[in-house]
Amino acid sequence: MTLRFTKGHGTHNDFVLVADTRGDLDLTPEQVRRLADRRGGIGGDGVIRLAPTAALARAGETVADEVLAAEPGAIWFMDYRNADGSVAEMCGNGVRVFTAFAEELGLVDLAGGGELALGTRAGVRRVRREESGWYAVDMGPWFLPGGEEAAAAGADAKVMVHGWPAPRPALSVDVGNPHTVVALPQAAELGAADLTRQPAVEPVPPHGTNVELVVPLGEETGPDGEPAGRVRMRVHERGVGETQSCGTGACAAALAVRTWASGGTGAGAPDTWFVEVPGGEVRVRLLPGGHVELAGPAELVYSGEIEL
Amino acid sequence: MTLRFTKGHGTHNDFVLVADTRGDLDLTPEQVRRLADRRGGIGGDGVIRLAPTAALARAGETVADEVLAAEPGAIWFMDYRNADGSVAEMCGNGVRVFTAFAEELGLVDLAGGGELALGTRAGVRRVRREESGWYAVDMGPWFLPGGEEAAAAGADAKVMVHGWPAPRPALSVDVGNPHTVVALPQAAELGAADLTRQPAVEPVPPHGTNVELVVPLGEETGPDGEPAGRVRMRVHERGVGETQSCGTGACAAALAVRTWASGGTGAGAPDTWFVEVPGGEVRVRLLPGGHVELAGPAELVYSGEIEL
Repeated sequence: MTLRFTKGHGTHNDFVLVADTRGDLDLTPEQVRRLADRRGGIGGDGVIRLAPTAALARAGETVADEVLAAEPGAIWFMDYRNADGSVAEMCGNGVRVFTAFAEELGLVDLAGGGELALGTRAGVRRVRREESGWYAVDMGPWFLPGGEEAAAAGADAKVMVHGWPAPRPALSVDVGNPHTVVALPQAAELGAADLTRQPAVEPVPPHGTNVELVVPLGEETGPDGEPAGRVRMRVHERGVGETQSCGTGACAAALAVRTWASGGTGAGAPDTWFVEVPGGEVRVRLLPGGHVELAGPAELVYSGEIEL
Repeated sequence: MTLRFTKGHGTHNDFVLVADTRGDLDLTPEQVRRLADRRGGIGGDGVIRLAPTAALARAGETVADEVLAAEPGAIWFMDYRNADGSVAEMCGNGVRVFTAFAEELGLVDLAGGGELALGTRAGVRRVRREESGWYAVDMGPWFLPGGEEAAAAGADAKVMVHGWPAPRPALSVDVGNPHTVVALPQAAELGAADLTRQPAVEPVPPHGTNVELVVPLGEETGPDGEPAGRVRMRVHERGVGETQSCGTGACAAALAVRTWASGGTGAGAPDTWFVEVPGGEVRVRLLPGGHVELAGPAELVYSGEIEL
């Protein structure tokens, strides 16, 4: 089988994209591993199949039925696979690159300020394209698992990074998946942290956690003239290791720093945050209704054909 | 500019291949870095431009004149660039993939047992395709910089790998570039060695050295019924770090183990060696005239187009 593909990335979180507009492509885990193999295949952090939501529903993915029930306009589904061949629910950077891919294919045009509603295994996601070319995604609801008590105290966990003299206090943030955020006082210390090993978290999270190390960098003026905060972060992704970028991790980092900056209340702290990740920069914004929005670039790099 | 390319690898040493049959493509270091970037570009250990040797001569590369003087039939030149954009002389795994690429382009056909003579910045290289599909390359002359004394003693240097209790004796081998080979008694110890840091070599080599850790695995029967040795190795490449495979490193590993197995004389030791590298397996053979041959697979994985 000759498979046509496109390679893309969002802040250097990179993906192999496959257009399956008829919805009849059944990628096996072995084929996904081959596509994601950086030396023996194409290479990527994940593989994204663009397929009709209805086709996934027909194939027995009940979440596709739920997507169509919630939003009949969610015609296209982001079938995301991890590089190891396993199925994943969502990927914040992947949604942006998926949308750029759908625009390139001519399946949608967001130039006029429209919105793409797409299906994912975490439910419907809505994407807009901004004038700058960045894509903004409603990432859904977020919350602090430690509640008001953790928000007021600024911490409900401790994180120990290899080489640190002692564990540091940390705040748990849920953005559909679990995060534990640690503040560092200086960028130099952030750069020096050893994330080649898994940080230890107390209490031990039952399903593991992503760990973000963040340095607050002050405030500036945002794109609409509103006050905006800036943070720099590095992330150790659960089951993966350090990565160049993590969309939900950027959201968690901004939400934790906002909590600390406001004594846990959110009052007086900016709702817009620029987050510097190793692979680039994204923007996090609080939306009404307890949702969080992630905006950032999406690059389609090249296209090709591979025999599978 | 739209650039058509092919991605290939030899024992997972991987390359972006570009056919420049007219010889008018001037790849800048920045473009090479972009092509070799695994997340923002295509990704590879190096970039190989296939171009007429005469075109490089016209462009002022004196080595291309020397190649044509030594072998007028060396029509095609392997213009090899490292991932950092710098120019490299040679790459043993790259020569095989280059030849597979030239065959796919229809520029040469080795099916009948013919030979391709190609130009490289280290001079002419000659390649045959074996019935198995493997390519065999005459890698040129080799020698032991320490001479007969080092051969008899089995060592002329010491190597210290991070975490070892003490340095170990090692043998210097030159295969057009410098190597320092260390024998380990057990495969388990080979697997456990920490090659994330540069091993320390005494005496300090003036231009650096590649370091091979090898475990002899005994003898078997070779492809032509002759006795053959087998070794497993890992390699730390000078200026690069640990890699999946290093062609000259595999040659150096086999040559060192052969020296040790024969008390430095070469007598009674096999002339054929199978070398297991992390990315696969290659075969090293002593040729008449003090040359060494490297044979192994070459895979062309996919083709595509990128805007540069």
